[in-house]
Amino acid sequence: MKFYQREGLIPEGRRSHPNQVEYDDAHVTRVRLVRALLETGGLSVAAAREVIAVLDAPDAPLAETFAVAQHAISASRTAGGAPSEESRERVRRLAREHRWVTTDDNPGIETAARALDGFRGIGFDPPPGYLDAYAAAAARAAAADLHALTTRSETDRVAELMVVGTVLGDPLFAGLRRLAQQDATTELFPVPGTPRDEDPS
Amino acid sequence: MKFYQREGLIPEGRRSHPNQVEYDDAHVTRVRLVRALLETGGLSVAAAREVIAVLDAPDAPLAETFAVAQHAISASRTAGGAPSEESRERVRRLAREHRWVTTDDNPGIETAARALDGFRGIGFDPPPGYLDAYAAAAARAAAADLHALTTRSETDRVAELMVVGTVLGDPLFAGLRRLAQQDATTELFPVPGTPRDEDPS
Repeated sequence: MKFYQREGLIPEGRRSHPNQVEYDDAHVTRVRLVRALLETGGLSVAAAREVIAVLDAPDAPLAETFAVAQHAISASRTAGGAPSEESRERVRRLAREHRWVTTDDNPGIETAARALDGFRGIGFDPPPGYLDAYAAAAARAAAADLHALTTRSETDRVAELMVVGTVLGDPLFAGLRRLAQQDATTELFPVPGTPRDEDPS
Repeated sequence: MKFYQREGLIPEGRRSHPNQVEYDDAHVTRVRLVRALLETGGLSVAAAREVIAVLDAPDAPLAETFAVAQHAISASRTAGGAPSEESRERVRRLAREHRWVTTDDNPGIETAARALDGFRGIGFDPPPGYLDAYAAAAARAAAADLHALTTRSETDRVAELMVVGTVLGDPLFAGLRRLAQQDATTELFPVPGTPRDEDPS
């Protein structure tokens, strides 16, 4: 708490007595947001400060807050070299095909392009059907992400869910994909002794 | 190459002359698979050896290879404490609701449950609609993953794509979700000066 205040991430409390400082609900919410940014999001203090500045700006549109949060999170997490221009262009084209309105500084372009480069490295050039399936999956999840934000009213709490959801949506999807892969594999290639094999239904 | 051979990950080449060793296509494919396991998948040498053993077992069903690969990858990547039993049960229930046939040792349960715990930490208990959207997205991606495998014939190359696809599908989805989020946010909360705002269509 002292550290957060010293770094200007949360305001000082109200000094009610010489040795006592009072914190209201807004303080508690802000502390939780700062934790979400630093711990869940893995942001640096400087990046967290940037996100909070956008939040505190009067009338900052949600899309701008989202953009700053996405950049801050991606900058903290991106590893490895720059992806090939070919893969970046493939991602941009995919976005256009799905009629997504995006800007070229969206960090998702780099992330997806780097994955495409990895696939190409083993001689797998993802066919359109594969990329379309992933794009449709991403659109479905993003719509759910946005809808979840509308269930919160306070700006701070919307931003908190935006940051935490951007970070945690990835492992949520990854875990569920492992389960769905097992189901799809078992269906295509049944293993003796597994539930589906034993299940008479 | 020498290291891979010493570790028993790839067989010795055929010595054609005293100072020359010949490698055939199968060798090249196997070296690439080992690289995919160690570098892309982040597997330990022991885990890679395990995956290769399943591959080399005659008539090992694809589902079993998948299970071993998923475990090896997840074991290398999982960080943080065990998720709550409540969140694990929520994931299992979600899988049942989607009629997925899965086993309780599927590492996806832990991964998704840990994400749910993170959401609960900020007071967001993901509603059924949110989880269903992510489950539907995961099923869509998993079907594309499985379909991609059918485009390859050699066992080694199927396994290679299985491993690489399991690993790289996550960042591919993450990147596309960032783009889809931008699109959905811009649609809901237009920012002055962005493409959609300027676009008269």
